[in-house]
Order: sequence, then C-alpha cells, then structure tokens
Amino acid sequence: MLSPTDLDVDSLLDCIPDWPKGPLDNARSKASFDWKVMKLVLDGDTVVRFKHKVWSTLASDPIFKRTPWEEYDRNEERRLTFARLKKLVDYKLASEEEYLNEPHKIPAFVQAVGQFSWSLIVKRVLSYEYFIVSCKMDNGDRDNSLVNDIMNFNALGAISITELAHGSNTKELQTTATYDPTKQCFVLNTPRLEATKVWSGVLGQSATHVVVFAQLYTPDGSCHGLHSFMVPIRDPKTFQPYPGLIIGDMGGKVGLNGLDNGFMTFKNYCIPKASLMNRNSDVTSDGKYTSKVKDESKRFGITLGVLSSGRIFIILFSISNIQSALSIAVRYSAVRRQFGPTNGEEIPVLEYQSQQWRLIPYIAASYVFHNFFGSLFLDYVDFFVTAFNANGDTQMDMGAEIHSLSSCGKAVATWMARDAIQECRECCGGHGYLKAAGFGELRNDHDANTTYEGDNNVLLQQTSNYLIKFYKEKVEEGKPISSYFGSVNYLDSIETILSTRCPGNLDDIPKVLEAYRFLVCYLLKSSYLKLQEQTVKMGDSFDAKNATQVYYLRSLAIVFFEAEALDRFQRFLTEFSVPDEISIVLKQLGLLYGLWSLEKHLAVLYESGYFTSLPLKPTQSTLSSSKPILTGPSTNIKEMILQLCNQLKDNAVALVDSYAPPDHILNSSLGASDGQIYQNIFAALENNKGAFGKPEWLEQIANSPSTLSGLKSKL
Amino acid sequence: MLSPTDLDVDSLLDCIPDWPKGPLDNARSKASFDWKVMKLVLDGDTVVRFKHKVWSTLASDPIFKRTPWEEYDRNEERRLTFARLKKLVDYKLASEEEYLNEPHKIPAFVQAVGQFSWSLIVKRVLSYEYFIVSCKMDNGDRDNSLVNDIMNFNALGAISITELAHGSNTKELQTTATYDPTKQCFVLNTPRLEATKVWSGVLGQSATHVVVFAQLYTPDGSCHGLHSFMVPIRDPKTFQPYPGLIIGDMGGKVGLNGLDNGFMTFKNYCIPKASLMNRNSDVTSDGKYTSKVKDESKRFGITLGVLSSGRIFIILFSISNIQSALSIAVRYSAVRRQFGPTNGEEIPVLEYQSQQWRLIPYIAASYVFHNFFGSLFLDYVDFFVTAFNANGDTQMDMGAEIHSLSSCGKAVATWMARDAIQECRECCGGHGYLKAAGFGELRNDHDANTTYEGDNNVLLQQTSNYLIKFYKEKVEEGKPISSYFGSVNYLDSIETILSTRCPGNLDDIPKVLEAYRFLVCYLLKSSYLKLQEQTVKMGDSFDAKNATQVYYLRSLAIVFFEAEALDRFQRFLTEFSVPDEISIVLKQLGLLYGLWSLEKHLAVLYESGYFTSLPLKPTQSTLSSSKPILTGPSTNIKEMILQLCNQLKDNAVALVDSYAPPDHILNSSLGASDGQIYQNIFAALENNKGAFGKPEWLEQIANSPSTLSGLKSKL
Ligand SMILES: Cc1cc2nc3c(=O)[nH]c(=O)nc-3n(C[C@H](O)[C@H](O)[C@H](O)COP(=O)(O)OP(=O)(O)OC[C@H]3O[C@@H](n4cnc5c(N)ncnc54)[C@H](O)[C@@H]3O)c2cc1C
Ligand SMILES: Cc1cc2nc3c(=O)[nH]c(=O)nc-3n(C[C@H](O)[C@H](O)[C@H](O)COP(=O)(O)OP(=O)(O)OC[C@H]3O[C@@H](n4cnc5c(N)ncnc54)[C@H](O)[C@@H]3O)c2cc1C
Repeated sequence: MLSPTDLDVDSLLDCIPDWPKGPLDNARSKASFDWKVMKLVLDGDTVVRFKHKVWSTLASDPIFKRTPWEEYDRNEERRLTFARLKKLVDYKLASEEEYLNEPHKIPAFVQAVGQFSWSLIVKRVLSYEYFIVSCKMDNGDRDNSLVNDIMNFNALGAISITELAHGSNTKELQTTATYDPTKQCFVLNTPRLEATKVWSGVLGQSATHVVVFAQLYTPDGSCHGLHSFMVPIRDPKTFQPYPGLIIGDMGGKVGLNGLDNGFMTFKNYCIPKASLMNRNSDVTSDGKYTSKVKDESKRFGITLGVLSSGRIFIILFSISNIQSALSIAVRYSAVRRQFGPTNGEEIPVLEYQSQQWRLIPYIAASYVFHNFFGSLFLDYVDFFVTAFNANGDTQMDMGAEIHSLSSCGKAVATWMARDAIQECRECCGGHGYLKAAGFGELRNDHDANTTYEGDNNVLLQQTSNYLIKFYKEKVEEGKPISSYFGSVNYLDSIETILSTRCPGNLDDIPKVLEAYRFLVCYLLKSSYLKLQEQTVKMGDSFDAKNATQVYYLRSLAIVFFEAEALDRFQRFLTEFSVPDEISIVLKQLGLLYGLWSLEKHLAVLYESGYFTSLPLKPTQSTLSSSKPILTGPSTNIKEMILQLCNQLKDNAVALVDSYAPPDHILNSSLGASDGQIYQNIFAALENNKGAFGKPEWLEQIANSPSTLSGLKSKL
Repeated sequence: MLSPTDLDVDSLLDCIPDWPKGPLDNARSKASFDWKVMKLVLDGDTVVRFKHKVWSTLASDPIFKRTPWEEYDRNEERRLTFARLKKLVDYKLASEEEYLNEPHKIPAFVQAVGQFSWSLIVKRVLSYEYFIVSCKMDNGDRDNSLVNDIMNFNALGAISITELAHGSNTKELQTTATYDPTKQCFVLNTPRLEATKVWSGVLGQSATHVVVFAQLYTPDGSCHGLHSFMVPIRDPKTFQPYPGLIIGDMGGKVGLNGLDNGFMTFKNYCIPKASLMNRNSDVTSDGKYTSKVKDESKRFGITLGVLSSGRIFIILFSISNIQSALSIAVRYSAVRRQFGPTNGEEIPVLEYQSQQWRLIPYIAASYVFHNFFGSLFLDYVDFFVTAFNANGDTQMDMGAEIHSLSSCGKAVATWMARDAIQECRECCGGHGYLKAAGFGELRNDHDANTTYEGDNNVLLQQTSNYLIKFYKEKVEEGKPISSYFGSVNYLDSIETILSTRCPGNLDDIPKVLEAYRFLVCYLLKSSYLKLQEQTVKMGDSFDAKNATQVYYLRSLAIVFFEAEALDRFQRFLTEFSVPDEISIVLKQLGLLYGLWSLEKHLAVLYESGYFTSLPLKPTQSTLSSSKPILTGPSTNIKEMILQLCNQLKDNAVALVDSYAPPDHILNSSLGASDGQIYQNIFAALENNKGAFGKPEWLEQIANSPSTLSGLKSKL
C-alpha cells in the first residue's frame, strides 16, 4: 500500500490542515510521532488525496449537509439517500480507468462515503458496483446498454437471493424459473409464502433490474438447480412495478434505514430466454438443458473468489467503524475529566488504567486490521485481474484461499467492530448515549455486517473446512500443505511446530506469532482428530462436523485469522521502511494486538502444554508478601498488555487523529477535532428539534380527567 | 420468593392459557417438565397473578396497543409515553398498602410495564416512585401535599444531579445554592456552561418539581458541600417553566426516546429556605450552617443502601431484557430450519451445537440472575423496613452490603443482558435485523443501563473497595470478616481456601462454588498485595488504586458477584422443595451458569496453581490418535458446558415459555408464542407504513437532470 517516498508531508498540507487549537492541544503535544506522517503510512499519498477529494465534494454540496442532532423518519432517510445516490453517480468522482489503474481508490471511495452514511454506500455498491460486476460476469450475449443505463442512473440494480425461509442455505431456495418453449421465455413463480424473495437491498422502492436466483426447471419437469436471471422489474421512468410482480418495501430495520430492502413475489412472470445469466449453462429453444460441466469445479473456485468482494468490503466497513468509534471515544476521553488525586483536581479519564485497557487494544486492532484489509485487497486485485483469463488451476486456488481469508476475516472484523463501538459508547458515559454522540447510528448500521454476505458463524465453517481439507490431504495422502498466497504454508510444519513450547516472555511480535502458530496447529490437529472420533461415533459427517464446532473448528478459524492478520502486519513492518518514531509505535501496536488477542486463548495454551503451570503443594501458597502478583506465563502477557497500553496512551489521540475522518463526516458532538466537547454537546442540546418548545399535547393529556373511575373495581 | 404450596397449577389456568398449536408443538412436546409449574417456581402465585392483571389491563386499553412494525418519531413516542403514564397512574393497579404488604408486587409491576416499554416505566419510576421516596426521606418539615399531587398526576417529579461536566464525580458539581438571609431563600445559579444540569429524566418536557443537587453556600461565602433541594420548576397546569430557569429537552438519544431527558440552567432562581432537603443539616434564618455531624457516617451507610434501589431495579431491567431477547431467539431457533444432513431435509437451527452454545448459557444466566434479584430484593426490603428506625450500626452495615452487592450486580447483569441481546439478534440471522423482530429497541433501550445509576466500571470499584476494606482490617487489625447478609463471610477463611486445589471434575454446583471462592480469595489477596506494592511505588493511594484495577480489583468485583449469584442459587435449590423434574433442570442450569462464567477466568485458575498443567517434554506431543481431544482441567469444563447445553436443548423452549411475557408485550414478529414465524414476519412486511406505495419523491429525483456538468473539472 505504501511507497516510502510517499511520506512527504509538506506536499500534502493543502488537504490535511492542522487541527484547531483547543482542549486537545495538551494530549496532542505528547505524541511521539507526527500524525500526518502516520496518515501517509496508513493510506499513502494517492488515497489521502482521493479521500480528500470525495470529502470536500460532500462538504461543499448542501444535499450532503448533516448535523449530529438531526433526526429523520424513515421516509426522509430514504429520500435523502436516494437523492445523495443520484448526486454521487452524477459526480463520477473517478473514471473507470482511474479505478482500474489505481484500484486502491475503490476502497478509498467506499470508506470515504461509508463513513458519511452506510445506507448510501451500501445502496450505491449494490445498485451499481456489484450489479455491474454481475452483468460483466454474465455470458456476454447481452448488449452493454444496461451497464450504461446503470452508470447514468437510468437504471438501478439489486441482487435477490434470500427468501423468507432460506438465506444461508441457498441451495434450498424455492423460487422457480420454468422454461416455456412456446413463448421462448422463463416463467418465474413464488410457489409458497416461504419462497417470497426478501431482504434484497434497493428492491424495496427503487431497483429497476434484479439478479434473481431461482431453481431452473425445463419443460420435462426436471430441476437443474439454482441459476441467476436478469429480471427487469420496474419501469425505469415511473418506477411502477410490472404486472405479475408484487413488490414491497420491508419497512423499518435496526439500522440502515436509508436503504430500501424489499420483498417480492412472482406470479407467472415471463422473462426472455436470454435472461439466464450463466456462462456455462443454457437451455435450447425447445427446452433442453445444456451445460459445460467440465470446468465446473474450477469455475466454482473462481466464483467463490469473486463473491468474496462483498466480504472483503465488509472488513473495510468494520475497520471504518472502529476508526470512527475510536476517534470519538479517544478524543472525548482525553478531554473529559472525572475524579482526581485531590479534591478539585481532576484527570482526563484516559489516564485511568481501565479506560486505557478498554480503548487502546482496539486502536491496536484497528491498525492491524487496516493493514490486513490493504493486503487482502491487493491479493484480491491480483486474483481478479487473472480470473477472467483463467487457464489453469491457479485461479481456482487463489479464489478458494481468498474465500477462506475473507470468510474468517469478515467474521472476526465485524465482531471486533461490534465490540469496539459498544466499548466506545460506554467509555463516553452518559453523553455517549446522546444521539448526537453518533454511537447509536454506528452500532445500528454496523450490526447488519455480522449477518449479511454470510452469517459469521456459518462463514467460520468455510474457513475451517478449507483448513481441515489441507490437513486431511496431508495426513491421508501425504500431500504437502501450501497455497498461492501462502496463508497455510506453515501448517506443513505442523508436527515441528507442535513440538515447540513457550520460549519465555512473548515480548515481540515474532514470539507471539510462534505461539499463535502453535495454537493454530494444535486446534487444527485436535479438530481433525475430534472430527474423526465423532464420525465414528455418529456415523454421519454432518453430525460429526456439528459436534466439533465449538472449541474446535470455530476456534480454529478464529485463531487462524488472528495469526494471519498479525503475520501480515509483521511482514509490513519488515518490508516497508518507515521513520523510526513511526515504526516504534507500530511495533507496540502489533505486539499489543497480538497479546490481547492471544489472551482469549490462554486456557488452550495451558491445556495444550504450550504453557506450563507447575503443581503446587496445597500448603504452598503462591501468595506471599514478597511475591504478591499473579504468576505464570499468562500473567506476563497481562502485565505486558497493561504496559503497552500505558506506553501508548500518550499517543492515543495522535493515533486516532491519523485516521479520523473530517468532522463533517464523523458528525459527532463528542468527537470533533477541536475537542470542545461541552460547547459541542451544548450546541446539540440547544439545536435539537423542539428543544425549548412545549409540545401541544402536554397540557391536554395532563389535564384530561381520568376515565377510569368505574373501571378499577372490575379488574 | 416461592412457597412450595404455591405450585398449584390448576388454580392458575385462568391467567396462563395453553399455547396456541403450531410449529412450536414439537419443540414443546420434548420438554421434561411442565412450564406452568416452572412459571410458578420462578414467580410464585401472587406475582404471576399480579403481572397477569397488569398485562390484561394494558391489553384491553387501546392507548397501550402496539404492533411490531410501528415506527414513531420522537415527538410521537414522547406523546404516547406521557399519555400512557397518565393512564398508568389513573389505573392505580395496586394500592400503597398492597405494595407494602406484598412488596414483590413492586418489581412485578416494574417488570410487567418495563417489558412493554422501558421509557414508560423509567418515566414512571423517576417521576413517581423515586420522587416520593426522596420526599419521604426528607426531614418531614414539608406537608404531604406534594406527594398527593404526584400520586394524582397533578405534579411530576425529577432528580437532577448530573451536570454537563460532572456525572460520576458528584462531589465536584458546580451548581450553587446561596442562602440569602434578606429574602430567606436559596438562590440557585449555574456559574458556567459546564455546570448546566443535564440528563435529568422527565425534566425535558414534563417535570414540575425537581430534586436539585447543588453546593450550599452561606452568606459568608463558605461552601458546605453538596445538598439537595426541592425545586418547583414548571406551572403544573400549563407546564410553563418559571422565570429564572432555562429548561430544554435533550433531544434524540440512542434509545428511551419516550423519556424526556432535560437540561436546565439557573439564573438567580430563588427557592424558599424550606426547600433544603437534608435531614441532618440546616441553615438558620440569618445564614448559619448547622449540621448533626455525629451520625453522619451512619446515615451515609443508610443513604447508600436506599440509593441502591435504582441499581437493584436495573438488575431487574436486565433480567427482563434477557428474558425477552431469549424468548424471541429461542422460539425462532426452534422453528427456523437451515441446512441438514441430506438435501431437502433441514433441521431447526437450535439443533446446531454452536447455536445451543450461543443461547443456552444465557438461559442459565437468566435463571440464576432472576433468583439473585429476588433474593437481593428481599434483603433490600429487610433493610428498608428497618432503615428508618435506625438505632444501631446494623442498618449501616446492611446498607453498605446492599450497596456492594447492587453495584457489582448491576454491572455484571447489565453487561450480561447487553451481550445476550446481541447474541440473540445474531442468532436470528437476517430476520433478526428487522425492526419488527424487536432487538433494535431492546438493545437501544437497554444500553443506558450500563451507564446510568452509576457507570459500570466505576461501580465495580465500589464493590472492590468494600471487599478490600474487610481484608485490610483482617490482616492489619485481626478483625474477623463477616457481614449482615453473609456475602463476605467465607472470606474469613481465606488462607484455608487458598490452600485448596482443584478437586477434579467440577461436576456439581458446590464444586464450582469452591473453585469460585478460591478465585475470589486469590484475587482479593493479590489485589491487596498489588495495591500495597503500587502504593509504595507511586506514593499515592489514588494512583495505586488506578494501577490495580485491571486484572485485579475489577476482576475481583466481577468474580465476587458471579460466586454470590451462584451461591444464592444453590441456597434456593437446597432450601426450597420443588418437584424433581424441575429441580433436575434447575441444577443443570446452575451448573451451566457456573461453569460458563468460570470459563472466563480459566487462566487465573492456572496462574494461581488451582489448576495444574503438567510440563511436557518438547518431543512429547499431547496429540496422538488415541488421545485426540484437548486435555487439562479446563478441557473438562468446556466439555461439560457442551454436554449441559445438549442436555438442556430440548427444554430450551419450555424454559423461555416459563417467563416469556405475552405476545402483545413481547411485540416481536419472530418471537410470538404461536411459532408462526413466516406468517408473522410477512404480516410485518405487508403492514409497515408505505410497504406498497411509491414515494412521491422517487420519480422526481431520478429524472432530474444532472446539475454537475460544468463542475467536475473544478474539483
Ligand atoms: C441489511 C441486510 C441486507 C441484505 N441484503 C441482501 C440482498 O441484497 N440480497 C439478498 O439476497 N439477501 C440480502 N440479505 C440477506 C442476508 O444475505 C442473509 O440474511 C444472511 O445471508 C444470513 O442468512 P439467514 O438470514 O438465512 O440466517 P440463518 O441461516 O437463518 O441464521 C440463523 C441462525 O442459524 C445459525 N446457523 C445457520 N446455519 C447453521 C449451521 N450450518 N451451523 C451452525 N449454525 C447455523 C446462524 O449462525 C444463525 O445464528 C440482507 C440481509 C440484511 C440484514
Ligand atoms: C438515559 C439516561 C438517563 C439519566 N437520568 C438521569 C437523571 O434522571 N438524573 C441525573 O442526575 N442524571 C441522570 N443521568 C446521568 C447518569 O447518571 C450519568 O451519565 C452516569 O452516572 C455516568 O456518569 P458520567 O456520564 O459522568 O460518566 P463519566 O464518569 O464521565 O464516565 C466516562 C468514562 O470514564 C470512566 N471513568 C470515570 N471515572 C473513572 C474512574 N475513577 N476510574 C476509571 N474509570 C473512570 C467511566 O468508566 C467511563 O468509561 C442519566 C443518564 C442517561 C444516559
């Protein structure tokens, strides 16, 4: 991501101004590095400039104006999102060529707009980017006019897979597409209530074309499995749904209320034969199903890879949310004072050990995951570029590996963000509960990320399946373990790794990585053995897998990801040269992330014998005045976590300054860059709708006579 | 709570009807006990009947009608809450005598109304119950007319402590009340922006009288610290604020938007001398401050106890939310099918090990915490009854112990509910993200509970201070450790307990309790020693305490609570006789809760030597085909957790049926008792506002010409 020559701060001064003076000055002055250099290390010159372009475009356009205290009903949120979407398309902030030549501008755009509004970017990505990729992955029979329409806002796309009764298990979807040779068309039907298409984003109000997944039936009555179809559903001028469709908006959601998720039922809805969107299968005009089965499995690997883009972007969504939440909570904590050593003297709550421990590990995670995203995105670009000229098994392998990494990565990153947002909310005390703080919207919008593009728990199984397969092939067929991007390569040394023991203090990243690799190997082998045991016991691999999830396969996928993220961070640290004052801090962050993540698995490290806790005679107490503190390898880890938090606390504000979006994007009364928390909160109080007015209903309700005199006795 | 003769189910049939037949029949038929008997075990006949009365009153009154898909703006939520509050007061569902004679009806009422709407019950409790208690704790100089007004909805109360810059640290509040002998009044002032009163519930729109905390100044300019004052703020007929006050509504919050939190500034606002609300201090008419200092510390203990009621009720709020969330998620999981052993055959997601492990421990916690609440509430009643005729140190001790228990209990219970709600949301997949599922509101409303009535992290310090004090006095002065309700008594045997070691499988509650007590003792002693060490190092007890929070004092308060909750559950099991089929299940729940909670502390059990993990030679792998599974004492714990989840899964639906509120209260399209998830979700889709309409703005925005043609190049 970073070219070291990019670190020329001076040339960037136009787009990253200094912070306004104020209550944060003191905290900022304590930083050991220049946050602008860190910003460049994180994003690189191109991305910093491009985000700046996006953000200043939004800042200068009244339709993108917001205040932290504004409140809209769902209709207004939908309207604003739609109007903003149109504007975004009109702006064409980068050309297609620009995105092709500088692919990092794609996530930069997604993040810059997403941090402004998740409804907006999700609507944009679903109706535009995903849809265009879907069109392009199609067999190419169709002309380009639909893509052009989409690009000019004359059409809007949506993807409709999920049904009322089926989401994760797409195989069992029940919508039917039956080929009718007389009319040369597919007839779509919703056979029962449970088959109603649901959740499709953009479908509720505005999509004109939908990629619909349905079971393909030929006239002979046989079913050929799930296929996708390009289905026009609304008149692009009037937005009137076509006859044969019932389309509705799903209504209120936990969050993302600017996005119009919809539901749809088909009643003998005819679409042209050419609507079938599958490169490898077709139906002859008289109704025979044909398919190029031969490279089916290769294509499957590639499809898996392409479909990973959704999850990869959700990793980015999660990092963006962690960044926003931390920007608010860390700045607030550096200004908010409560209690102190003497009466009258109060200290910033960031000085409390517990506040540091609650926030700073998430800063560490945000840096490590940011790097993970950047690195996985490069892998994805690598894969994507070669995917369409597939001429070997490599692309298939690449696709499967990216699928594995994006599955566990999406699960762990979305959970990390979920917990970070919550911790940040609580770290801001009562004021964190104000709508104007921003956490409510962050949390509610983020919440969907744990579920869509694959439920997290189901996704973890994708990764563990991938890993188990390698190990099985090694043990049962002697195949060496390796993969294109190398994420599994160390597993080939599994027995050597399993013979290692904790080397003492885990005081640098490589040592933590060793512990992590031991953990992964240990969980891989024991999961495999447990699976075997359960298969013998239960006689069924479905049941055996189910009985090996918790503490085995599920943990395996999680530690595999945590190790991989740390490994990629370590590689970044060794491969890129950054100024010393930056690299010192990055190393602290990497180590803190590693130890803090490892902390969740301490018991396994003891169980596995990697850690040792010596048996003590009952009379021999571990507690004596001379040796007061907890002991054992895990104790050292905890002590180091606290030390690192303490070492990093004076850099905490600079670390969030380095990635905080501008104030008008962050849109929080607690997190503004000027640190004027009380003025800003007060502005939110004063300016909210009806702050000082007396509601018209108040007097009337209060003074209405009780109507219950006769009622009470009857209850 | 329970009298065994109460378990006569037949006599209750009128208020607990059977469940409607439907998709849940199968799951229900697998239960090993009668859920109606369990309901009686949980609540007892009186409470079941009383809740039924409350709920049927709400059901029959149109103002309390709701649908899962309704959406209101803040103004409408405020209006509805206010109108419902008035109705609730009018209904007088129980008389004051009834509540006095059967105090369990108080939490029953709070829970029954709270599960309907938290804004409503919080508004009710703040403006009514708390306020009346405040009045009654006053010195009694005032006549009773205000209490009568409140009881007849002719006045509404509020409590105003928090200021913009001070919440947790009340000592430093800055609002001033200066006695003016010429006018014989106190003059209230807000000296600076930061001293603006904020967050006070009911203040925003509707309170007429507020208990205001301010620094009392006498005419000689000296400050006598924080005192409370009864301050009339609005005309009770017109709701017009009086001159000298600026009062506003705080606007949108993360949740609880039916509740009008307010802010207020004073400008030379005069209140009569008699407004001072302190039993023990006064100001003479010429402005001398007088105070009965002698029993100040005793009163402080009592005040602590009385103020615990807020936290005790928040424990109840939390349990209620866990119950609601689990009722939805468990029923949904028993009906929702996804994947299966063979194509076409799908199993309920509750059959997945991971789904069981994600949900069932929370069921266990809900039972254990329910019992904890009931038992602590009894202690509180015991204390409250004697508190006002205080004639010894006993009441002070009782108050301090209740303060300690309610502090850690509130923290752990609110976090437990926070996590349970989130897990339940995720367990319902995409449909869980619908507003109509109910989780959004549950989570957003619940969120405040971790903060108000004391920030959780600050509260944990209250409990650890309490425990450390006992230990210090024991070690330094030889005082035995004991308390009125006995929660700390076992700490007196600390050295004996610390000499114990894990006795093998922790396969019953008493053994888990032993491990827990070891943990508490271990953390108590090491916290004390660490505190000493840090005090020597830092030379300041404030800093030393700060540096001993994480992994020490904070963990101490948490494990102390977890152990106490388990202990009270075990006492319930031994002291009350319930039918065998019930007690078997309760024991499983208790054990599961104990092991699952203990799991978070496994590393400490290794560090402390309670668990042993033998050192292995590097060449000696713990993994061989014959011994595939993780080993060590902690492994057994995990295996037992999974076994217990598996044993309990067929009872899961009956366990939530036993406490689920009626459908019109639960108000969830996923959690209705008929189990018709798809019909109910579809009803929510069809009936939401604007489901099928085309928004008027759509066509207009879509077809508006781009206004950006000339703009792009300028960016
Ligand atoms: C905001 C939002 C936008 C969406 N947009 C779209 C869209 O544009 N197009 C579209 O087609 N869909 C969309 N969806 C639907 C989404 O893709 C699905 O909801 C998601 O894939 C999860 O599937 P599910 O709802 O069936 O969950 P389920 O599979 O029903 O999950 C329910 C529970 O069962 C558990 N579970 C399921 N299977 C297993 C197993 N094998 N082992 C263990 N546990 C299991 C899960 O972990 C979960 O706890 C959207 C959803 C949301 C919330
Ligand atoms: C919905 C709602 C209703 C409310 N109703 C009322 C009401 O009716 N009347 C009223 O007077 N107030 C009310 N409040 C205010 C509420 O009581 C306070 O917000 C609450 O006590 C927390 O205090 P704070 O906001 O000052 O948090 P802070 O103390 O500012 O906490 C901020 C952060 O600092 C940390 N922290 C603070 N001190 C320490 C320490 N010593 N050690 C370690 N960490 C520390 C906290 O853990 C937290 O992470 C309400 C608040 C809400 C959200």
